[in-house]
Amino acid sequence: MNFKSDNVFGIHPKVLEAIIKANEGTEASYGNDSYSKKLSEKCCELFEKEVIVYLTNTGTAANCLGLSALAKPFETVCCHTEAHINTDECGALGLFSGGAKLVTIPGANGKIDLGILAEYIDGTRFHPPHGGKVSCISITQSTELGTVYTIEEMFKIQEFAKSRNLSLHMDGARFANSLMSLKVTPAELTWKMGIDVMTFGAIKNGTMAGEAIVFFNKKYAENFDYVHMRAGQLSSKMRFFSCQFLAYLENELWLKNAQQANNMAKNLLKLFNDYKIQPKYSVEANELFVVLPKDFVEYLRTHGAGFYEWGVPEENLYRFVTSFLTSDEDTKELRQYFDSYYSKIK
Amino acid sequence: MNFKSDNVFGIHPKVLEAIIKANEGTEASYGNDSYSKKLSEKCCELFEKEVIVYLTNTGTAANCLGLSALAKPFETVCCHTEAHINTDECGALGLFSGGAKLVTIPGANGKIDLGILAEYIDGTRFHPPHGGKVSCISITQSTELGTVYTIEEMFKIQEFAKSRNLSLHMDGARFANSLMSLKVTPAELTWKMGIDVMTFGAIKNGTMAGEAIVFFNKKYAENFDYVHMRAGQLSSKMRFFSCQFLAYLENELWLKNAQQANNMAKNLLKLFNDYKIQPKYSVEANELFVVLPKDFVEYLRTHGAGFYEWGVPEENLYRFVTSFLTSDEDTKELRQYFDSYYSKIK
Amino acid sequence: MNFKSDNVFGIHPKVLEAIIKANEGTEASYGNDSYSKKLSEKCCELFEKEVIVYLTNTGTAANCLGLSALAKPFETVCCHTEAHINTDECGALGLFSGGAKLVTIPGANGKIDLGILAEYIDGTRFHPPHGGKVSCISITQSTELGTVYTIEEMFKIQEFAKSRNLSLHMDGARFANSLMSLKVTPAELTWKMGIDVMTFGAIKNGTMAGEAIVFFNKKYAENFDYVHMRAGQLSSKMRFFSCQFLAYLENELWLKNAQQANNMAKNLLKLFNDYKIQPKYSVEANELFVVLPKDFVEYLRTHGAGFYEWGVPEENLYRFVTSFLTSDEDTKELRQYFDSYYSKIK
Amino acid sequence: MNFKSDNVFGIHPKVLEAIIKANEGTEASYGNDSYSKKLSEKCCELFEKEVIVYLTNTGTAANCLGLSALAKPFETVCCHTEAHINTDECGALGLFSGGAKLVTIPGANGKIDLGILAEYIDGTRFHPPHGGKVSCISITQSTELGTVYTIEEMFKIQEFAKSRNLSLHMDGARFANSLMSLKVTPAELTWKMGIDVMTFGAIKNGTMAGEAIVFFNKKYAENFDYVHMRAGQLSSKMRFFSCQFLAYLENELWLKNAQQANNMAKNLLKLFNDYKIQPKYSVEANELFVVLPKDFVEYLRTHGAGFYEWGVPEENLYRFVTSFLTSDEDTKELRQYFDSYYSKIK
Repeated sequence: MNFKSDNVFGIHPKVLEAIIKANEGTEASYGNDSYSKKLSEKCCELFEKEVIVYLTNTGTAANCLGLSALAKPFETVCCHTEAHINTDECGALGLFSGGAKLVTIPGANGKIDLGILAEYIDGTRFHPPHGGKVSCISITQSTELGTVYTIEEMFKIQEFAKSRNLSLHMDGARFANSLMSLKVTPAELTWKMGIDVMTFGAIKNGTMAGEAIVFFNKKYAENFDYVHMRAGQLSSKMRFFSCQFLAYLENELWLKNAQQANNMAKNLLKLFNDYKIQPKYSVEANELFVVLPKDFVEYLRTHGAGFYEWGVPEENLYRFVTSFLTSDEDTKELRQYFDSYYSKIK
Repeated sequence: MNFKSDNVFGIHPKVLEAIIKANEGTEASYGNDSYSKKLSEKCCELFEKEVIVYLTNTGTAANCLGLSALAKPFETVCCHTEAHINTDECGALGLFSGGAKLVTIPGANGKIDLGILAEYIDGTRFHPPHGGKVSCISITQSTELGTVYTIEEMFKIQEFAKSRNLSLHMDGARFANSLMSLKVTPAELTWKMGIDVMTFGAIKNGTMAGEAIVFFNKKYAENFDYVHMRAGQLSSKMRFFSCQFLAYLENELWLKNAQQANNMAKNLLKLFNDYKIQPKYSVEANELFVVLPKDFVEYLRTHGAGFYEWGVPEENLYRFVTSFLTSDEDTKELRQYFDSYYSKIK
Repeated sequence: MNFKSDNVFGIHPKVLEAIIKANEGTEASYGNDSYSKKLSEKCCELFEKEVIVYLTNTGTAANCLGLSALAKPFETVCCHTEAHINTDECGALGLFSGGAKLVTIPGANGKIDLGILAEYIDGTRFHPPHGGKVSCISITQSTELGTVYTIEEMFKIQEFAKSRNLSLHMDGARFANSLMSLKVTPAELTWKMGIDVMTFGAIKNGTMAGEAIVFFNKKYAENFDYVHMRAGQLSSKMRFFSCQFLAYLENELWLKNAQQANNMAKNLLKLFNDYKIQPKYSVEANELFVVLPKDFVEYLRTHGAGFYEWGVPEENLYRFVTSFLTSDEDTKELRQYFDSYYSKIK
Repeated sequence: MNFKSDNVFGIHPKVLEAIIKANEGTEASYGNDSYSKKLSEKCCELFEKEVIVYLTNTGTAANCLGLSALAKPFETVCCHTEAHINTDECGALGLFSGGAKLVTIPGANGKIDLGILAEYIDGTRFHPPHGGKVSCISITQSTELGTVYTIEEMFKIQEFAKSRNLSLHMDGARFANSLMSLKVTPAELTWKMGIDVMTFGAIKNGTMAGEAIVFFNKKYAENFDYVHMRAGQLSSKMRFFSCQFLAYLENELWLKNAQQANNMAKNLLKLFNDYKIQPKYSVEANELFVVLPKDFVEYLRTHGAGFYEWGVPEENLYRFVTSFLTSDEDTKELRQYFDSYYSKIK
């Protein structure tokens, strides 16, 4: 019953198997191996476009190194206040970009409010060059609050970005979950919506390590071999990372995994609803945020349920995350504790 | 009738005279001249404390280079949303600090709201090391909105900073104006209020170039010789910058200049009040923000009055800045245009 | 017969087994897992000292992130001209340190010439603050040229560093090979020789990924949690990296692997000597550099032997690297091609 | 008799006069003033080309900010070992470029040896992306050793740069001295020789502050408004810097000043030659390097002559610099001390 994060789970058996298989013989190092080449091809096929792919070890590296291609040191990236690059990456954008500025834009349901963004960019206070130069919008799909930008919302962002000559970045740490939620293709949710560069997440959804930076717009990938190497992200034994990602994509494993996580979130939603608990945000992917009484939280934790508190202490808000390894048994077990606790206190 | 900025005015005659006098014979270069030594001594006297002083060419360099001593590349600086370091320095903090993060905190009257700051720092979302490490608060005195932090407000900020183990930085681009407003000593408004490092402004108030970084807390000045040099701020003919600052301080020229600017702001305030125009913020230094009808703005500008629009376009908000060279004649002339315009439209 | 690099080989079976075993159940993420804790304890034991350990994904990250703790943005690191941080890390020091300078010092056999270093640091040209501030010496053990600093040489470097108040960094990508060469303990070759921070290599000698930054001097590890996270090196599923390193250290696997690589280098040395080929540098670890006729090089490559050219094209210098997976069969096979080629051309 | 540096002298009277004249009325701030516009036009005329000009406060800022337009954070700049950017700017390139690498190339007479540079760039050791990406060559004209690259040498550098797709930067802190030495036009020594960006020095040759970055190749100036502002180099009262540079260029003041300095160097050369002292490097601009007996050095210094020791202590090498304010009287006075000392010791 671990709902703390999708990171607390291990490696999917198929991915682990791929590592074992790749451990035969010698291979060219530093990404010149056969697995890495195959991965590039596979991604082109998947996105129905000639894309350029770089693997990094962590999501933080994928996000902020990818963004460094879109934001020069003197430029500004706009993201939602709750974006991972703002709240959880310890200023990595400042490192990898050489000091680019991050400006946070609020908005309901973890989604950027384009009106507020427009006010920021178009306001007289931000006269060039004094106010800096906004170059890029970064969105998170699915969002940090378990919601998903709809195709209509994506389209409006694309229009906005075009009108201000901005590039578009997507933190897709949970990209698969949003695909399963919207029932669209990878192409439809990325470059067809104007995304230039994306973090294609895999770790939370089945691999051990390795998130991909995918360039849909080739001009931003110029010289990225150097950027990638210099950031300490070009693994010498890259075959062991590429093989994982290949296994992750094979036979739609990644989509099946995401579907399982999303389904388990629906299970939890049903459980909460049965107990008249309304999640704070619409449950559209694999995360739920609910207000729970402190006593009940303690009761659940005592019985082995793991989940984090979220937001300001007074709010009593808690986050539940499901993963590809969350099972019906897990959600059933949680329901039992709901039943037993609430039958007692009645 | 130029109320655009205190930067549109020239050099005070006494300061210019000092440059002319300093142009005799040879002098040691790179700050080893006699003027620079005298300036250090003068500052110690002025602040009633052994301080360490570095001159920079611009306010941006003074602010962000000074802050680089308080914020390591992986740390975060908190400032007000309207702070110059946020709105007008094009991400210079990112450059000089090596990528430190800037987090903006709103608050009424251009002053940081400590409640919102506390929520940011103490919230569960910002778990170390993911959320970064807040190391420093930067305040602006007088503020960008023409208000002045009171001694009581300064004291609360000091207490807050102590409680969270944060250092304190002050952007004193208009420090003299706040001193004249509060009628306190330089010491009382700086290190006695816990300020560790300060930008001691002079350009807006009488010199040609040269803002001082003043270290009240010596530990932050360690190795700053290197930092200063590397940032391209160690002028080879430093004597010509130091002599200006000396003349600026001599016979309280700086305080007299600031008093003049503040007085002229009071003149404008009286004018606005006579016409039932209430400035948006309390007028405590040398800046006023008023909403004016678009037609009247055009009329004034046609007749030679200079001032900038501020904020979002729909607001019709305008900023008027007075300086040491603003005269009674200037404010009288503006009043004449008020009179003539409003007599006509009646 | 792959002698291209120790990076072309896979994972040692014991290490792979550890990954498989670690894939059970859930574990705390971001380095709070049980494996990471065990690894810290194991390293303290190994080095007979309370050390602080951080894992990174690559050697480049380990070297340059570790160095960032020893060199502030305005400081200078001195290393040998052939050091990996100079030749093979694409300026990563500039990234991770926030712009620190790298100064290269020549020296015979891939070892820093202390006389030249002294001339650089003590020369009148480098007057502070203009010339910068040398803060750190980085040495490579074993060196990039297959030699090993002796204990006497290490001691002299320690004395030199002390006399100029410099810190000491060691790139130990092939640390195990130097230990096996010198027959000393890990403690004797590191902190007892004044090393403050070290890259403890594992990838070249048996793991899939994960090099450790080991802090022998705790003061340099202050706030490193933030530095590590911000650099995108804190893996969410860190258990899979820590478990590898643990397996690597268990039952002295790392030392046995290094011994095997060193032994195979001796095999190659004998082969070369038998053919009157004198390596350019003394063969003390697992690398050999020999001049070979172009025709013979082509012959060997046609028959499947892999090795890189090194240095300027006219030199016809080639590097052979042995690893823990290089076998007697490999060296014997190479000998056969020597025999057949040279019997023909006689 | 101050031969320490061209920086120990003051402001030329014509330049000072220009400051005084500019101090009338109000002017647009941050470079939007009439003087700055005139300076841009004047530079286009001077270089017979549409150039883009930015003023900085110091030579360090001009050099390294200008270079930041030619070297991205992951790129490498090659310069001579004696280049100011290597020896005297405290790693400013690392700051302004966001961590670009500086590689030093030796060469006789303070000039880059193209053979050594070729070996560096073309060597097999520097395989991309590991070895980084050399993007730019920076040369100093006149050099730090008082020599001047001839037109033929400049042409060869241009050819080399073209062949490797490198950009060309010139540190022209003493550009005027080299022009007077070679008797060519500004155009002939810059963009006609392939220079893309240049530091156009003025401080050493007559102004108080302000060195110009001149872009001959417009593509490198893209977005430089932001770069310039962010670096704290956009002075609010820019008119006082631009007016200096205008006065410096007016009526060829800059060339006359440089001629005077060069002439005085010839005076010194004659003096040294008369005493059989051969300068270490050819005297082609306004600097001389001579070996002098320690006793004589002490004698000269006791009698008021100023000059710096250079290089390693054992060498007894001393640098003499002449300036636009060095007079026949100065060199005559020095001669008197030569005469009196050497007559005594005979």
